[in-house]
Amino acid sequence: MSALPTGLVSAPLPPVLLAELRAIFGDRLHLGEAMRAQHGASEAHFATVLPDAVVFPHSTEEVAALVRACIAADTPIIPYGAGTSIEGNTTPTRGGVTIDLSEMNAIVSVNAEDFDCTVQAGVRREQLNEYLRDSGLFFPIDPGANATIGGMAATRASGTNAVRYGTMREAVLSLRVVTPDGRDIRTSRRARKSAAGDDLTRLMIGSEGTLGIITEVTLRLHGIPESIMAAVCSFETMAGAVDTVVQSIQLGIPLARVEILDDVQMKAVNAWSNLDYPEQTTLFFEFHGSERYVQEQVETVSALASENGGGAFQWAVLPEERAKLWKARHEAYYAALGLRKGCVGWPTDVCVPISRLAECILETKKDLEGASIPGPILGHVGDGNFHVVFVLDPNRPEEAREAEALNRRLVRRALDMDGTCTGEHGIGLGKQDWLVEELGEAVDMMRMIKRAIDPRDLFNPGKIFSL
Amino acid sequence: MSALPTGLVSAPLPPVLLAELRAIFGDRLHLGEAMRAQHGASEAHFATVLPDAVVFPHSTEEVAALVRACIAADTPIIPYGAGTSIEGNTTPTRGGVTIDLSEMNAIVSVNAEDFDCTVQAGVRREQLNEYLRDSGLFFPIDPGANATIGGMAATRASGTNAVRYGTMREAVLSLRVVTPDGRDIRTSRRARKSAAGDDLTRLMIGSEGTLGIITEVTLRLHGIPESIMAAVCSFETMAGAVDTVVQSIQLGIPLARVEILDDVQMKAVNAWSNLDYPEQTTLFFEFHGSERYVQEQVETVSALASENGGGAFQWAVLPEERAKLWKARHEAYYAALGLRKGCVGWPTDVCVPISRLAECILETKKDLEGASIPGPILGHVGDGNFHVVFVLDPNRPEEAREAEALNRRLVRRALDMDGTCTGEHGIGLGKQDWLVEELGEAVDMMRMIKRAIDPRDLFNPGKIFSL
Repeated sequence: MSALPTGLVSAPLPPVLLAELRAIFGDRLHLGEAMRAQHGASEAHFATVLPDAVVFPHSTEEVAALVRACIAADTPIIPYGAGTSIEGNTTPTRGGVTIDLSEMNAIVSVNAEDFDCTVQAGVRREQLNEYLRDSGLFFPIDPGANATIGGMAATRASGTNAVRYGTMREAVLSLRVVTPDGRDIRTSRRARKSAAGDDLTRLMIGSEGTLGIITEVTLRLHGIPESIMAAVCSFETMAGAVDTVVQSIQLGIPLARVEILDDVQMKAVNAWSNLDYPEQTTLFFEFHGSERYVQEQVETVSALASENGGGAFQWAVLPEERAKLWKARHEAYYAALGLRKGCVGWPTDVCVPISRLAECILETKKDLEGASIPGPILGHVGDGNFHVVFVLDPNRPEEAREAEALNRRLVRRALDMDGTCTGEHGIGLGKQDWLVEELGEAVDMMRMIKRAIDPRDLFNPGKIFSL
Repeated sequence: MSALPTGLVSAPLPPVLLAELRAIFGDRLHLGEAMRAQHGASEAHFATVLPDAVVFPHSTEEVAALVRACIAADTPIIPYGAGTSIEGNTTPTRGGVTIDLSEMNAIVSVNAEDFDCTVQAGVRREQLNEYLRDSGLFFPIDPGANATIGGMAATRASGTNAVRYGTMREAVLSLRVVTPDGRDIRTSRRARKSAAGDDLTRLMIGSEGTLGIITEVTLRLHGIPESIMAAVCSFETMAGAVDTVVQSIQLGIPLARVEILDDVQMKAVNAWSNLDYPEQTTLFFEFHGSERYVQEQVETVSALASENGGGAFQWAVLPEERAKLWKARHEAYYAALGLRKGCVGWPTDVCVPISRLAECILETKKDLEGASIPGPILGHVGDGNFHVVFVLDPNRPEEAREAEALNRRLVRRALDMDGTCTGEHGIGLGKQDWLVEELGEAVDMMRMIKRAIDPRDLFNPGKIFSL
């Protein structure tokens, strides 16, 4: 679970492969160190490892040609979206070719009547919602970062809207994928549901590029609700905040978003975004529906909050007020880093059954209060999912060791509660031992599948598990 | 796609295996012809093929012991739930041991605060909802038949509530599975979401027992809504009925159920259930929510229905009235068979993008009006999914040929509309050629996975695709 040494690079690419890549990609083949370093770096605490080359395909056909060339040369291929993953999911541990899909950013089609669209893998979620705005539709999955849709599918991303709209698992209808034998397949049709054979769509979602390179994604969309209201509410206790959410869900309130931020995170957010929220446990809410129905939801939830030690709701009604509120939430990671100048973040996440969430957060908070490094907590409380960002001085290795110990206690606690070692960040490099703790021999079945589909271990090798 | 000859049976079981089965199962090992015939029969038009033995396990450990014994003897194993599947999904094409899971029917745990429960695979959905009644929770997936939860997972079942609550794909949190190498694995933890590795849960759901035997299922539950209202509404035209649903969904109305029945199906329902609905295209609705919210939904949808040529809503408000309404809907298959005495059903289903649904149904109806056999239509209109039941005289082979031709035109039409050859029945024996038409080389990836996980092809062999 420790970071790799910086700069570990495999042998340079074979000349035959290099010539082929040049023929396919021309000046979209990059060998310079700056470009390679950018693609070998991590948003989080993982050390940079350079790929041997970076290419920017413009079509699925180019991706398939790349795959065939790399197979022939026995060279690894690492798919790369926006580079916003945080478990070392795109680190080219064995070198090879990083395939940056960001220039495959066309919106292929929107079927408004069917509530779906098809996009190339490099389309970013904000770009898609910008494009959809006038159609009355939106794409709800929101991991915070302005990630690519392909990357979000590959890591099974979720985020603030998942409590109401699900994760990428539920959002994807179909994928176009280039397989490790160079085939260009489509995993499903555009029908809303299907019982036609093994669910390759879901197998690809969350496989982090180890089983195929996603080049196009067909997504479910949702109608923009008639009414949207957002509010912030501070609580006397963490338990009061969590209970408010659990009771709301029990009453069938379809909370569109409900985020928890602890006092440390609120302090960071206030400082970073120049706000003056009370620096105590806080819920950020969003309600979607018809005018009347939103009103009804708000009445119920604010009454519950008040019974559980919550203060008055601070409303953000206008779109620009809402945008400001969610911007503050989305920048929470950078706000956390802002707590200590020149430091790096080690973000981790777990997800537990919601009945155990308050206990899990409270025990974690006790650990963090005794620690020498800050660790703000924020989470998607409706799902039982929360994050800790350890903020580390990269020049003090003892801090990384302390973070590792804190993380170990956190993940162990989540597993003991029948939770998972990662709710939405993926396994990447960082959680591989924990995956085995969590699922035991089931990981052997994953290995069997990987060996069958990618027998030469060339697709994002070394991620999720070692073969 | 044609039915197999009756009675095609493999060689008797090897004596060593027989002795082992007797040691494990005692008098829960059955070799008599009646029991074998019951388990080799199909609810639909597929010919009966006898397994060589039937066993009734009581624990996952017994299932694992059976698997190890069968592997050693190179003998196929066919998982069997309630026997309500309709594409020949449990037909023991190569003989072997049918493993009837119906006596593994314990409800292992209910976590009301987490909205989940864990059940053994043989629990039936009505049994589960009976058990849950006092908890204020319910399990929504409802394929009509009182199927087992394990069978529903294995075939990725859905049904009348899927438009609001999703299919088995969304309903399952985790599975306990005995793999083809005899291991007892759990595919996920009980957390609401996870990004931990390849999605084995979803890979197992819909794999029809070809990749593992599901012995326990952890399910998401939902709160019983404060208010439930059901209604029936007749329409002048099929297009008007479909448009009402599409427009309702576009307005964000969370229809809990919306079923379409054509005039032929309504005639069958009236005769079978002794009712007097108008014999024209009809929608069966159900609305869930708070009192106020259900009222709001009803106002919106009834206004849309009226604009689209719908008549007045006939309400079923009391639980017993609702039960009667949905019983009539659920018995639609038997009602269809009731149209011709002594006949068998050939039920088929497709699912298309909802924008193409009216056109797909209307063209199919035109085909059926020119046919010599009845073919009532009913569907889950909110999902774009509909069924045709061809009602055949088993003594007239020309009728089976006619049904096959009609089915071919129907599935081809659905595929041409970017739909799927089966929305919820699965591939089984009946739709194998169509699966290849639908997904092309993606089926080769399914084959690779099957070969890796079940290299000797002993788990429900010959289903979904041939190796």
